[in-house]
Amino acid sequence: MAAMKVQMTLTKPVTFVTGNAKKLEEVKMILGQSIPFQSLKLDLPELQGEPEDISKEKARLAAKEIGGPVLVEDTCLCFNALNGLPGPYVKWFLMKTGHEGLNNLLAAYEDKTAYALCVFSLALGPDFEPITFSGRTEGKIVPARGSGNFGWDPIFQPVGSDFTFAEMLKDEKNKISHRRRALDKVKEYFYDFNYAPRSGNV
Amino acid sequence: MAAMKVQMTLTKPVTFVTGNAKKLEEVKMILGQSIPFQSLKLDLPELQGEPEDISKEKARLAAKEIGGPVLVEDTCLCFNALNGLPGPYVKWFLMKTGHEGLNNLLAAYEDKTAYALCVFSLALGPDFEPITFSGRTEGKIVPARGSGNFGWDPIFQPVGSDFTFAEMLKDEKNKISHRRRALDKVKEYFYDFNYAPRSGNV
Repeated sequence: MAAMKVQMTLTKPVTFVTGNAKKLEEVKMILGQSIPFQSLKLDLPELQGEPEDISKEKARLAAKEIGGPVLVEDTCLCFNALNGLPGPYVKWFLMKTGHEGLNNLLAAYEDKTAYALCVFSLALGPDFEPITFSGRTEGKIVPARGSGNFGWDPIFQPVGSDFTFAEMLKDEKNKISHRRRALDKVKEYFYDFNYAPRSGNV
Repeated sequence: MAAMKVQMTLTKPVTFVTGNAKKLEEVKMILGQSIPFQSLKLDLPELQGEPEDISKEKARLAAKEIGGPVLVEDTCLCFNALNGLPGPYVKWFLMKTGHEGLNNLLAAYEDKTAYALCVFSLALGPDFEPITFSGRTEGKIVPARGSGNFGWDPIFQPVGSDFTFAEMLKDEKNKISHRRRALDKVKEYFYDFNYAPRSGNV
């Protein structure tokens, strides 16, 4: 009901903090014009720990630096046989051992299932507690197939597809990805609280 | 030459920051009376990254909190087949997958060699750049043997020994451990700069 809607205004556009051009491209494609949005590369320390805690802490630090609303993103690739690891550390394994190394981590296990997890944290400013939005896509780890230019996309094949993320068209991936699912929640939040100018009926 | 020695004084004893009773016990045994030393449990964020950077950042944060000289410690277990991983993230793998899980990470590889790496960082105060001291012990990863009450000690068998760290007497382990090698450098530093009251001829 429109009458129930909270009215909030953003004093500044939301700064999405990333240094990863591929992530930025996906976020732009998925968000479209739904949120007043700019992006910035910022050198932030990354913590060890549980995915939500890592993301929240990054949002706190970013909001302090920016002095305004920020959105940060963390991605994990979680192997079920390893109880969720390498999880937030996947980028180090990818960097040091490559796609084959990531497959090899599961050599001892029949269970090759995994899930891709994306956690966005939004801090409306330095004095606001970050809010998190998680998206998860189930799948399995396979030997690399497809274009190798975006992280571990070539080794992740989502449930219900014969293709890895890297073999899909961007549009297809963005329909079912962990990032899409998390960003849908971000959009919903902005919509519910009337943060963004939005066309259409309310 | 004694005449060349720099004379430095510590205004406060060095605070060793740890919440791990077993680490503290080893550090106490190895340091003995060589350094004016106290310990404190402090909840510090732990970064992702290269071992030395992680350790330095922890020392910076600790020195800020304590307002005096601090010593912090980080331990890594580095598998050569995984180009140094799990490294600083070994505690998460141990926590989520146990000793067997750590062995399983190497199932795809014939090379089971590894090294234990200990990095101490000393910050003389909040305005000092931390100094690091690293110690490394070469060995291999084996199925767990010995007392299981200190981290990954049961699965690490150092080169030249038939026993895992967990099967050795404390004294034996402390003669060859990564922690011992790093602390020897810390002691040497304190000795060279005359920080500590020290008996014997100089």
